This record gives sequence, structure tokens and C-alpha cells, in this order.
Amino acid sequence: MLSPKDYIEKNKDAFLNELIELLKIPSVSADPAFKDDVNAAAKVVKKSLLAAGCDTAEVCETPGLPIVYGEKIIDPKLPTVLVYGHYDVQPPDPIDLWTSPPFEPVIKKTDIHPEGAIFARGACDDKGQMFMHVKALQYMTETDNLPCNVKFMIEGEEEVGSVSLEWFLERNQDKLENDVILISDTGMISKDTPSITTGLRGLSYVEVEVTGPNRDLHSGLYGGAVANPINILNKMIASLQDEDNRITVPGFYDKVEELSKEERQKMAEAPFDLDEYKEHIGIPDVRGEKAYSTLERASIRPTLDVNGIWGGYIGEGAKTVIASKAYAKISMRLVPNHNWEEITELFKKHFESIAPAGVTVEVKPHHGGQAYVTPIDGIEYKAADLAFKDTFGKDAIPLRSGGSIPIVSLFEGYLKSKTILMGFGLNSDAIHSPNEHFGVWNFLKGIETIPYFYKHFTDLKTKS
Amino acid sequence: MLSPKDYIEKNKDAFLNELIELLKIPSVSADPAFKDDVNAAAKVVKKSLLAAGCDTAEVCETPGLPIVYGEKIIDPKLPTVLVYGHYDVQPPDPIDLWTSPPFEPVIKKTDIHPEGAIFARGACDDKGQMFMHVKALQYMTETDNLPCNVKFMIEGEEEVGSVSLEWFLERNQDKLENDVILISDTGMISKDTPSITTGLRGLSYVEVEVTGPNRDLHSGLYGGAVANPINILNKMIASLQDEDNRITVPGFYDKVEELSKEERQKMAEAPFDLDEYKEHIGIPDVRGEKAYSTLERASIRPTLDVNGIWGGYIGEGAKTVIASKAYAKISMRLVPNHNWEEITELFKKHFESIAPAGVTVEVKPHHGGQAYVTPIDGIEYKAADLAFKDTFGKDAIPLRSGGSIPIVSLFEGYLKSKTILMGFGLNSDAIHSPNEHFGVWNFLKGIETIPYFYKHFTDLKTKS
Repeated sequence: MLSPKDYIEKNKDAFLNELIELLKIPSVSADPAFKDDVNAAAKVVKKSLLAAGCDTAEVCETPGLPIVYGEKIIDPKLPTVLVYGHYDVQPPDPIDLWTSPPFEPVIKKTDIHPEGAIFARGACDDKGQMFMHVKALQYMTETDNLPCNVKFMIEGEEEVGSVSLEWFLERNQDKLENDVILISDTGMISKDTPSITTGLRGLSYVEVEVTGPNRDLHSGLYGGAVANPINILNKMIASLQDEDNRITVPGFYDKVEELSKEERQKMAEAPFDLDEYKEHIGIPDVRGEKAYSTLERASIRPTLDVNGIWGGYIGEGAKTVIASKAYAKISMRLVPNHNWEEITELFKKHFESIAPAGVTVEVKPHHGGQAYVTPIDGIEYKAADLAFKDTFGKDAIPLRSGGSIPIVSLFEGYLKSKTILMGFGLNSDAIHSPNEHFGVWNFLKGIETIPYFYKHFTDLKTKS
Repeated sequence: MLSPKDYIEKNKDAFLNELIELLKIPSVSADPAFKDDVNAAAKVVKKSLLAAGCDTAEVCETPGLPIVYGEKIIDPKLPTVLVYGHYDVQPPDPIDLWTSPPFEPVIKKTDIHPEGAIFARGACDDKGQMFMHVKALQYMTETDNLPCNVKFMIEGEEEVGSVSLEWFLERNQDKLENDVILISDTGMISKDTPSITTGLRGLSYVEVEVTGPNRDLHSGLYGGAVANPINILNKMIASLQDEDNRITVPGFYDKVEELSKEERQKMAEAPFDLDEYKEHIGIPDVRGEKAYSTLERASIRPTLDVNGIWGGYIGEGAKTVIASKAYAKISMRLVPNHNWEEITELFKKHFESIAPAGVTVEVKPHHGGQAYVTPIDGIEYKAADLAFKDTFGKDAIPLRSGGSIPIVSLFEGYLKSKTILMGFGLNSDAIHSPNEHFGVWNFLKGIETIPYFYKHFTDLKTKS
């Protein structure tokens, strides 16, 4: 029987070419202008599921963008793995900072990826990682090596909050029944340090708008006499964090889980080089909540970041104007046991309450999701760890991520199963940034490792 | 002899049509894309000066945009009036808020302007007001009524800081020799309350840039662990004003002239309706420096306003990003006895010093100018007051403006003469805003009043 490694060696060019074709489609869910491309990508995913060995695959309509569903049921008595991924991508802006166009994939060698990396929007997040699972299925079906049932649920709205996913889950609980959910949309520590993400932060994303005068004003004639919406917005946002970088929204920390000293000690053992971290993103210093380490600040503590801000004249040269309106997009990363809708309400109430006289303020909740923690003593985690041991020769490190995949806690609610986050991306892959890429080595390593998860999970599940 | 009023009655349609033609040209100095239009406007101004009776007129090249110079010298022994204005205009953004296109002038009736107002960018600031002087000259030459010499200096960079004007003044001091400078680029209190602007604020305009990581980062993976340039920029700008709305830049108020109780009392006598003021610009409340009235805050006190701010993702929908850079355009209005270059340096030093660890900050001075106060006991002011008395039947009110015309103090330095600011615009004309307009009545009233200034000034000057 051909090992995953050998199978991959024979087929890697084809795999890369197929992934490249998928990456060419600008499936940007945030922008309605790309609706046709999103639909085209869904069709390609469906085709690839059938080509990989699914008995059935379909593009399912939803109130929003389609969800692709595929399955191969070999025996109802065997366990079922449900693979989740997404075929939509982040907007590519700012485009002028890409060295090659975001939707013209090209393989380039880098220091971290001497075997080459595919540069394109979505290469890592999430098309590259999602596609590993499709190719892993292809390996298992073509070598008659599939130990259990498999279902695929690949959506098109992850980057905009998976707005239709709950609708889909609600209506398809039987269809989606499974014993474990597998997701590759996170990262590993490095190419020789596999990790399993055991925690995800929650998210609350809002848009705020401050309005002053009913039109832009001349800043000479009116400057000093009226509230300037931009100055006011700055004051309000600045007040949201104190000098210890703690968030000042009343009640924000009430439900935050404090990790035990032992857990924090264990986290501190994960390999982490602060100098390399700073050098890699070109910052002179880190900055965050007092009394927590960098890794802790980025995983087990909640945050508040302004993702975008604009108002007034932002073109070339000078314009002496007091803007009528100022805007910001603000998001908070949450931790257990925050309830994201509650936090959103707390934020909204607080922000609207601190608006000074002279302006009106509007807070528009956008989307969000709960934090999630996966138990490391379950067979799901064990199976993943054994798979990494097979292909990397060492145990995986349990890792709390700073990122959010809001639907993971939704899954547990509707489908009653745990999620395993086996990521093969690297922090340096620059997801959500210009020049996003995914290592060819990482892509192929994922395809190699995933079948071992199926093997071990089926063994452990059927024994138990 | 035909009075100005009668002459205007006969020629007003022609005057309006000529102004409309000039307003069609998008002479936006802030944007190099409009360079050809700026040059075209200069040519039209030159032609109009010759048509109005100038003996010579020329478009003078400068290191930047051209300055139009014209003159009619009738007798070197007579006084000389130098008219300054500008043919460049503010950018029209945001264009979608205009009810008619900014460069397609149209006359519409409004409540304040039942005789109609010309709606276009530059209608009031400054083409309409500048053109009053050209038509006033035409009246005086065609009715053989010009009592003294006249020179015109109409530049094309006022909206971007008049960068080439000092170069021009330095090289043409003899050519520009004059006894008084006349400018119409300010406003009057209302159509039945003429005013002469006796004070202008200074200006310091800077651009600031805060840089954090060397690329945009995923706000889940990095949120909480690194300084977010937008959050930081907000904090820094917020710190520039305290809870009394005083500017916190060290040394900022050291040279600020405090007006005497009597002067402040006199200012408070000017007609001003706070409810109307608030209603007119649609604000629930005014806001400004503690212990000063609205009029004082807008004229005799210095200010700090953010004119534009941007950073991160500002498009449709959500993007969970920590921006690499955040930017703002900030301007300060200054008062006697600020030195604008000194204030710019104070600001730059302070702003760069308050940058926290984790970011780098750059402050780029853009342009500026000194504040100016005109003496109300001189013959210049007297002549203007008498002219207003002739055409309005009442004295003008001396008014301290909040706006800046930085070159006025430059003029005094190079040409050794005072400037009289006779404005015919209204605050409601929305200069620098969408739907800028200029009342037909105001335009014609200016043409009517200006010749009386020439008459009285020549009388007073030759008698003294």
C-alpha cells in the first residue's frame, strides 16, 4: 500500500496546480461585487470533492453565500469525521503592497520556505489548508485506505462572520451528524514544531459613527467653537484602554477565566523567541496588558483593536475642514467565559454613554462568536497528537490561539461534537495581510498527516 | 455719471455669466491632476483684467502655480490700491453630497438668498469675491471714475498655503509697491450687517504618521500583544487637549495675546444668536475652551483640529486587521503673538516625544502663516467703513475672524502696507464644504461698494 508520503510525491504537481486554479478565483465574501466569483469557487470546491472520492457533493443555497457539502459514507456503524473549511477569502487590500497580484498565484522561494510557497490571497487562509483535506481524502479513497465515514462542509462566509452557517446547522443536524469535526484554519509553531490549537478567542466586531455638524465646516470659521467629530472619536477610543492597557468598558472582565499558575507555567514552556517575534514584524517593542506575557496577551486575554478609522479629508495635500462624521471599525477578541452578544451590548451601551455634548454616536454591531477551548484528554486530541507523531516524529504542543473561529462553539451546540484544530500554517504566512502565502512543504505535510488522524481516531473510537 | 448701482443693473447678467464661465474651471490647487485647469483659470483671469481696463496683465510663472498680475497706473503721484485674491479652489470632496455638480455652476434661490445664489466650488471662496474687484475696476474705467492707481495680484495656491507667493513678493517688491492691499476672502455678519475683518488667525498645518509593525497583521493572532498604530494615534491625539479643551503642547499658550475685558465686552456686542448658530449647522451643543464664549473660541483663541484621519481597513464590511500605519492631518489656528514656525516646531517636538514604545512617529509640517490684526484707527479702515456707509447706510462692525489668510502678514513684511479685508460672503455660504454658494445680491453689492472704497481712500490719503 502506498504511504501518504509516496502518494504525495507522485501527485504533488497536480495537487499544486489544482490549488492554484482555485486560488485564482477572487472569492471575496466581504464585497458584493465579487458575488459571482464566490459562486464560481463554490462550484470548483464541489467538483474537487467529487473528484477526490465523495459519493455526493452539492452546492447548497443559503440566505447568503452557498455552503458546499460532500460525503462518503462507507458504513453507518463506523465513526464519522466532519471536515469544515471555507472557500471565501479576505479582501486583498491594500493591493499596492503586494509584490505579485493577490489573485495571480505564484510559487516563490523564501528563507522560511526554501521549497517554495504559494503567494496568493487565500493560499493559507483557508483554501490551501482546506484543500489539504480534499487531497487527503483522495489519497485515502484511491489507495482504498479510508477507515471511516467522511463529510465535508465548506462555507463561503467565514471572513464575514459565517452569517448563514447557523441557519444551515439548524436545518441539517441529522445530515451533519459526526463524531469529530476537523478544521485546518490555524497555525503551527514552526515547521519542526507541530501544534494543536486547543483554544480560540471569541470575537465582537462593531462599527461606530460619530456625527457633529450637519455638513463639513471650515476649520477656521468654526474651529474651537464646535465639537470636532474626529477629535471626539479619538478621545472616546483612547478612553477605552487605561494606562495598563486594560479595557475600561464596565463589566468587561467580570466573566474572564483566569488561568491557574500551573497552566500559565505550561504555556510559558512553548518555544517562543521574543526577539525573533519583534524582528519578524519589524516592531521596536511589544505592548499589551500589564502583568501578562506576549503569548498570554495574544491568546488568553481579551483585547480591543481599532481595525479601521476614517473621517475628514484624507486625499492629497491639505484641506482645512471639520468633518461632519468620523467612523471606526472596532473589534474585541474574547476569552472563556465571555458571551459575545453580552460583550457587544456592554460595549455599545458604554460607548454611546461616553459621547460628549455636541455629537451623536451610533454603534452598529457587525458580527461575533464565542471563545472555545478543546479538552486535551479526549480521544480527538489524542488522535491528532498520534498523527503528528507519525509524520513529525514528536508530540504536538497544545497551543492557545489568539484567533477566532466563532462557529466552533456553534458546532458543539448544534452537533454535539468536539472540534480538532490541526493547523499547518505559520504566523509568517501573513494571512489577512498583503503577500499572504502558504509553504509547499506545509501543504504537502498536511496532506500526509491528515490520513493518520483518520486512522488513529477510528482505532481509538471503535475501541472505546 | 452712472452710479455703481445703475451700472451694475445694466450689466449684471453679463457679470454673472462671466463669473459662471470662470467657475466651470476646476482649478483645484491641492491635486496635481488639475494642473491644466489651474493654468486655464489663470489665463481667463488675465483676460478679464485686460477687459476690465488694466493697461497690462500677465500670467507670471513661479516655482509652483502661476500668479496673475495686472495694473492700471494713471498717475504715479496718486495712491495705489493692490487687490489680492486667488483663482484656485478647495477640492470639492465629498462630491456625493453636492446637490448640483461642483463645477457646473447653477443659480438657485434659497431662504437666505431669495434673489438667487450661484452654487459651485469657488463661488464665494474666492472666485466670486475676487471677480467683484475686477468688475468694480471695469465700472470705474468705463465711467472714467478711477481715482487712483490699481494693481491686481491674483494667485493660484491659496488653498495649499500660497507656497510660491513669498518667492514672488521677494522678487517684485517694486512692482507691487502700494498704499493699501484690498482683499475680499472673508465674510460679513449678514446681508444687512456689513463687517470689516480686523483680525485673522494664524495657521500651522501638519501631517502625522504612526508606524507599528512592518505589515498589516491579523488582529486575532497579534491583537493584545503589539501596539496598534490606530489605537496609539487616537491616544496621542486625545492627549493633545485636556478636559477644559485647552491644548496641552508645552509652551503653546506662552505668547498668546489675552484681550482686555473691554475688548471682550465690545466683541460680545456683535449680533450673534447661539440658537440660530447651532440650528444652522445642526449641532445639539457648542463645545470649546473653558471660560470663553463661542465667538471668542472661534476668533481670538487658538485651536487644534484633526482635519482628516485614516488607517486600517475602511472599505465595506469587516476586516480583522492591525494596520501597519495610521495617519492624520492636523491643523492649529493661531493668534497674536504666535509665531507659526515656532508653534509647528513645538508641536512636532511634543508629538514625537509622546510616542509610546512599539511605534515610530513622523510629523511632517505642511504649511502655515501668522495671525494678523488690522488697526481700526487708520485711514484704510476708515475708507472701508465710509464705503459701507454709502451702500448699506450704516457703519461696518469690526470683526475678528477665525479663518486664516497667512500671506497678509507676509504682505506687511515685504510691501510695508496694511491690508483691508472687505468680505461679502456669509457663513452660510458653506465654503470648504459641499454646496458652496455665493449670493447674487452679495456679489453685486460688492461690486457696488468697492468703488466707494477707492474714492474715500484716495480722498483721505491725498489729504493726509
